[in-house]
Amino acid sequence: MADQYAQSSEDIQLSEDIQAKTIDLPAIRWEEPAEGPVLVLLDQTRLPAEEVELVCTDPPALVQAIRTLAVRGAPLLGIAGAYGVALAAARGFDVQEAADALADARPTAVNLAYGVRKAQEAYRSAFGNGAGDAEAVRERAAAAALAAARDLHREDARASAKMAENGLRLLDELLTGGTHRILTHCNTGALVSGGEGTAFAVALAAHRAGRLRRLWVDETRPLLQGARLTAYEAARNGMAYTLLTDNAAGSLFAAGEVDAVLIGADRIAADGSVANKVGSYPLAVLARYHHVPFIVVAPVTTVDPETPDGASIEVEQRAGHEVTEVTAPQAPLAGVEAGGGIPVAPLGTQAYNPAFDVTPPELVTAIVTEWGVVAPVTADDLGELCARSRQVTMS
Amino acid sequence: MADQYAQSSEDIQLSEDIQAKTIDLPAIRWEEPAEGPVLVLLDQTRLPAEEVELVCTDPPALVQAIRTLAVRGAPLLGIAGAYGVALAAARGFDVQEAADALADARPTAVNLAYGVRKAQEAYRSAFGNGAGDAEAVRERAAAAALAAARDLHREDARASAKMAENGLRLLDELLTGGTHRILTHCNTGALVSGGEGTAFAVALAAHRAGRLRRLWVDETRPLLQGARLTAYEAARNGMAYTLLTDNAAGSLFAAGEVDAVLIGADRIAADGSVANKVGSYPLAVLARYHHVPFIVVAPVTTVDPETPDGASIEVEQRAGHEVTEVTAPQAPLAGVEAGGGIPVAPLGTQAYNPAFDVTPPELVTAIVTEWGVVAPVTADDLGELCARSRQVTMS
Repeated sequence: MADQYAQSSEDIQLSEDIQAKTIDLPAIRWEEPAEGPVLVLLDQTRLPAEEVELVCTDPPALVQAIRTLAVRGAPLLGIAGAYGVALAAARGFDVQEAADALADARPTAVNLAYGVRKAQEAYRSAFGNGAGDAEAVRERAAAAALAAARDLHREDARASAKMAENGLRLLDELLTGGTHRILTHCNTGALVSGGEGTAFAVALAAHRAGRLRRLWVDETRPLLQGARLTAYEAARNGMAYTLLTDNAAGSLFAAGEVDAVLIGADRIAADGSVANKVGSYPLAVLARYHHVPFIVVAPVTTVDPETPDGASIEVEQRAGHEVTEVTAPQAPLAGVEAGGGIPVAPLGTQAYNPAFDVTPPELVTAIVTEWGVVAPVTADDLGELCARSRQVTMS
Repeated sequence: MADQYAQSSEDIQLSEDIQAKTIDLPAIRWEEPAEGPVLVLLDQTRLPAEEVELVCTDPPALVQAIRTLAVRGAPLLGIAGAYGVALAAARGFDVQEAADALADARPTAVNLAYGVRKAQEAYRSAFGNGAGDAEAVRERAAAAALAAARDLHREDARASAKMAENGLRLLDELLTGGTHRILTHCNTGALVSGGEGTAFAVALAAHRAGRLRRLWVDETRPLLQGARLTAYEAARNGMAYTLLTDNAAGSLFAAGEVDAVLIGADRIAADGSVANKVGSYPLAVLARYHHVPFIVVAPVTTVDPETPDGASIEVEQRAGHEVTEVTAPQAPLAGVEAGGGIPVAPLGTQAYNPAFDVTPPELVTAIVTEWGVVAPVTADDLGELCARSRQVTMS
């Protein structure tokens, strides 16, 4: 059973809850209609052509939404995972089973497993301390899981604001000239976050401070998150942006048109190796060759102390059809479903399609987190920053 | 007036002339039906979904076919330009006007202007030496232009075979291990050539010699010449090939899966700077960072002694819709014409879309031509090789 249904943007725009947010359509929200609680996701596979929300009424529906990238982006996956556990608890599903399925839905983003664990721990702890009848204990445990998810959601919004602040300060320190031409890859804005995102939030802060000269947006093949999602967020925020094929970034570097590269991260190993959307590593090599800062922006939850180095990061290999077909995000065409593929390569073509690549710490100028900046990137400094964040969080 | 018409692959496969060629459908051919001479092009915008030929009955039709990339690839553009002049002459168009329009149809490929010039010189020379009535002189001049185009066509086929031989020998010298994993970008095979192409011809020679372990095919955004055309040629030749997004090349380098990069060229400056399909320069930087040979394969006509260096190369900027929309090469979908675009970015998105980039000589391991190999790439050695080729050609 995987129960999802879509609601169109007309229905959505009636909701007062949504109107209050910075971006009219939040990437994720918890709702409690009469029929029972649901997790509502903005279906990112349909953007920018259509703003359609996907309503998940059970954990398998959420697992499917994670796998198809209807919901995506490291920080948001953490929030989604936590809400998914809360949904399982509230709807009477086996919480352990749901947690396992959610944590395994995508292998690379460490935040997903982190969010799942946080909600699951809250659930277990409330269950363990429960007094009263079984039903009351179950309800309290479900409420605890939901509270943990909401905490994570709020924390992520706060972390996002702090990363934006730290990132902009770093840009102003590293770059002279007053205004910045920033190249970014994939999508790292409000669509991946409880707040305004990671790398994109820094560019947005620069824009608001009048210091963004140009945001260069890599289209980010194969799934075009840059063309579809980052361009959408940049346009909504009135930023000066230009889209380019991933191939054209080299020409911008050669012409001296890039002052800094800002990207997010899906997992950061203990040594500072950064797994991020495929295409990040070539940018790091180009940035190094052209003496341009290469800056990674991510919450500390992205750092995985259990992963010692880059070689230990499991990189998700995705289906070849993402490469051999191009996706049509708009309203259905005859013969092609929305989000479905139009073949571009000969039938039977085999494709190599890693979702991520790994950039070694020596190519990363700085890692910007909500707890501060690590530069140069060393295992010691990164470990110290993580330890500091844990102490404060627990105190 | 721009008179083109399409004929489907069923009509085409009846022709004996075509059956005799290595690849069933030649990229270009001159035909003389009762209605008058025509230039027949394999419409490369429709591959691999459909094999449709485009019949050009006048020079403006050919100019349009060059601009829309129905015919493309540096060596083939030279041949097309020469036949275009022959077509103008045979059909009674103003030859000077046609030659100017053809030479200007795309600014970066030097071969186009070279082919136009060769046919025009033959035409003028025959005209100048002409005796007899005006009509007879005109006919002889037109025949001379056609003969020059045919010569260029044959020369290119011979050059292609020689480049393949020289390129494979170089690979065997540079690489140990016996079999080669070659990464290529864009399309450089029989579709761009009077023969089997440039870089692709080397890979094909390695395949035939049992020494091609894998051909890694960059999809080559925005127009996907790799996915659509190189994959098509690799499949037709039974080569072991794998398609990847341009973004994923970095992961292959990092994993040690690339033994050499082989690309073509649209213009080589006198100092050895190489203009080629956008995305070539990032590959050159990656190759350098990973100590992998980066090899350019091109006929000597690609070297332009009039262009002193990389900065002097005019890089064609193409329309933004090639980036903001993805093309559907297959049969028409409802609402989208074949070869037409499906929007992927928000309406009004501005795009940076250079067709080419420039790789400086210090990043090029070798330039392989039909006259020999230049390695390391220096202005002197390149100039000497060009001078040698001109002497032999003129003698």
